[in-house]
Amino acid sequence: MSGTAGLAPEFDVSEWIGGPPDLSLAELRGKVVVAYAFQMLCPGCVAEALPQARRLAAVFPREMVAVLGLHTVFEHHEAMMPLALRAFIQEYRIDFPVGVDRANGRELPRTMARYRMQGTPTILMIDRAGRLRRQHFGHVDDIALGAEVMALVAEAASPQAAAGAPAGRGCTDGECAA
Amino acid sequence: MSGTAGLAPEFDVSEWIGGPPDLSLAELRGKVVVAYAFQMLCPGCVAEALPQARRLAAVFPREMVAVLGLHTVFEHHEAMMPLALRAFIQEYRIDFPVGVDRANGRELPRTMARYRMQGTPTILMIDRAGRLRRQHFGHVDDIALGAEVMALVAEAASPQAAAGAPAGRGCTDGECAA
Amino acid sequence: MSGTAGLAPEFDVSEWIGGPPDLSLAELRGKVVVAYAFQMLCPGCVAEALPQARRLAAVFPREMVAVLGLHTVFEHHEAMMPLALRAFIQEYRIDFPVGVDRANGRELPRTMARYRMQGTPTILMIDRAGRLRRQHFGHVDDIALGAEVMALVAEAASPQAAAGAPAGRGCTDGECAA
Amino acid sequence: MSGTAGLAPEFDVSEWIGGPPDLSLAELRGKVVVAYAFQMLCPGCVAEALPQARRLAAVFPREMVAVLGLHTVFEHHEAMMPLALRAFIQEYRIDFPVGVDRANGRELPRTMARYRMQGTPTILMIDRAGRLRRQHFGHVDDIALGAEVMALVAEAASPQAAAGAPAGRGCTDGECAA
Repeated sequence: MSGTAGLAPEFDVSEWIGGPPDLSLAELRGKVVVAYAFQMLCPGCVAEALPQARRLAAVFPREMVAVLGLHTVFEHHEAMMPLALRAFIQEYRIDFPVGVDRANGRELPRTMARYRMQGTPTILMIDRAGRLRRQHFGHVDDIALGAEVMALVAEAASPQAAAGAPAGRGCTDGECAA
Repeated sequence: MSGTAGLAPEFDVSEWIGGPPDLSLAELRGKVVVAYAFQMLCPGCVAEALPQARRLAAVFPREMVAVLGLHTVFEHHEAMMPLALRAFIQEYRIDFPVGVDRANGRELPRTMARYRMQGTPTILMIDRAGRLRRQHFGHVDDIALGAEVMALVAEAASPQAAAGAPAGRGCTDGECAA
Repeated sequence: MSGTAGLAPEFDVSEWIGGPPDLSLAELRGKVVVAYAFQMLCPGCVAEALPQARRLAAVFPREMVAVLGLHTVFEHHEAMMPLALRAFIQEYRIDFPVGVDRANGRELPRTMARYRMQGTPTILMIDRAGRLRRQHFGHVDDIALGAEVMALVAEAASPQAAAGAPAGRGCTDGECAA
Repeated sequence: MSGTAGLAPEFDVSEWIGGPPDLSLAELRGKVVVAYAFQMLCPGCVAEALPQARRLAAVFPREMVAVLGLHTVFEHHEAMMPLALRAFIQEYRIDFPVGVDRANGRELPRTMARYRMQGTPTILMIDRAGRLRRQHFGHVDDIALGAEVMALVAEAASPQAAAGAPAGRGCTDGECAA
């Protein structure tokens, strides 16, 4: 995890699946945003992070908390093209918008690089004023997640920083490091 | 679930295990209190509610949230005497205070009756001003629990009511109804 | 685990709950017997071993495989008297016979001592000729269990020995050592 | 499930990943073969069937039981090309051979059609004489699986039939029907 003072960098995506084409963080100002960076072939993303994202979206009203996916492909590019991602989203019944992080050849995709993510899954928590309040690589406990998100919801929209997080390239059962 | 306007009724217990003898809700005023009413032979309490209580106690600092157990025996009384409860608490490594709800012959024990609980497990959420804000019979999702508790923590100490909950005698895998 | 050449020692129980009063290993000769030694306050027994015993009893016909419980209390004696065990068996819906290992003061109970068990849970596998073929302290994988039991079922009734097992006093989440 | 009298039809695959190029059922005669037909975007295959296949391969020696995968793509063809499958096999650490069922345009792939499979996952159990003894669409309990496979292992190589199974197009959390 790392806390940051400034605004969360805008997402640079080639398209949004399941959301309006002009979806952006700026557009979501006023809501708490929780974004899950994932890869469809990352076991920990599929088994843990995405189901948690679905539970989160079910607990908080959409007007209050926007849950987003961000497909940040940094390996096996040919196996995880948007076409495959669409099939994945359909079969796994993902019902929140998923952005396709803009590819950058063999470099890390644009948004992933911009946030200096260590791998997948990575959770981003952005407050109502658009500030990145927490970035966490790996798993977050459900109770702690509910508490953190509610703390952001409960804020008037006044800033404060938060903190704390783990960190290697290749996938384990739980996560994939860039 | 049911919301209530007034103060949470004081617990009437014959003893506290793992806590000071004079523990009381009045004593905890200023903290959020989450109490789990359970029976040591209730499968849903053992498999779901008590592990959740332990996770909750691990997420929130003690100065902020007090997690309590309340042993509300309404069946198999001879099998769940305080002596057995002490062994249970030791083997299951329960590290928060557990009150023994005061027996009332073959009637429901005192605190359980006072709160008109429907069975076990029942979760009580009490705000910093001592008001009962939520009473829920059965399971609560972890994300929702974290969010609700944080909402109470975030309150200045100003009141508001909350709401929502399920409801027979005998135990199922998940709960025991009085 | 330990393999043995001779007959499985007869169980010395003070009573059978959920079975005929004269139940014995001799009586079950011709069937494969899988017995689970447990304590009702042993977390690993409640969470893992007893549910597995129920699954096992559901897979194999009773005429082929007899699943038994053996309540081997070696600590917290007053908390796990037969009266409490009966309530436990009812609440956890255990539908196979459970023998109460005969108490021996503060010594290990009789059957547990006779089998030199290391703690709970312990699984005993006895072949159709009444020989103890495997004794295992701790958890056994479901696929391996199904395979081992079927191997005993498939035997004409001709002997062979098997082997392999883990091992201190006190309970962990998984097991309780004597 | 359905029992069959004759030999299990040979697999018609375009390639084997993680196995010798000339792998065939004929080649495996003398061993029990358990094959898992799956799709990499079928949630029930990923969450249930493939982990079970890995556990099965860990319990039985390779000389005794051959565990195989069969990638039977009947939807989202472009998303599940061999290149993507290779990435999937690597990330999920699948350590048994996986055959790519030969495509047949928009028809069901060749082996899937030959076996008249209803969808994925489907488990095929083939005895040491090469006969298809059980074909099951959906989930099989671990204890029952261990028992069935051991029953086949224990046979001299003499035939008998077995039986029993569930059954629409589209994926649920548990399975995908063709």
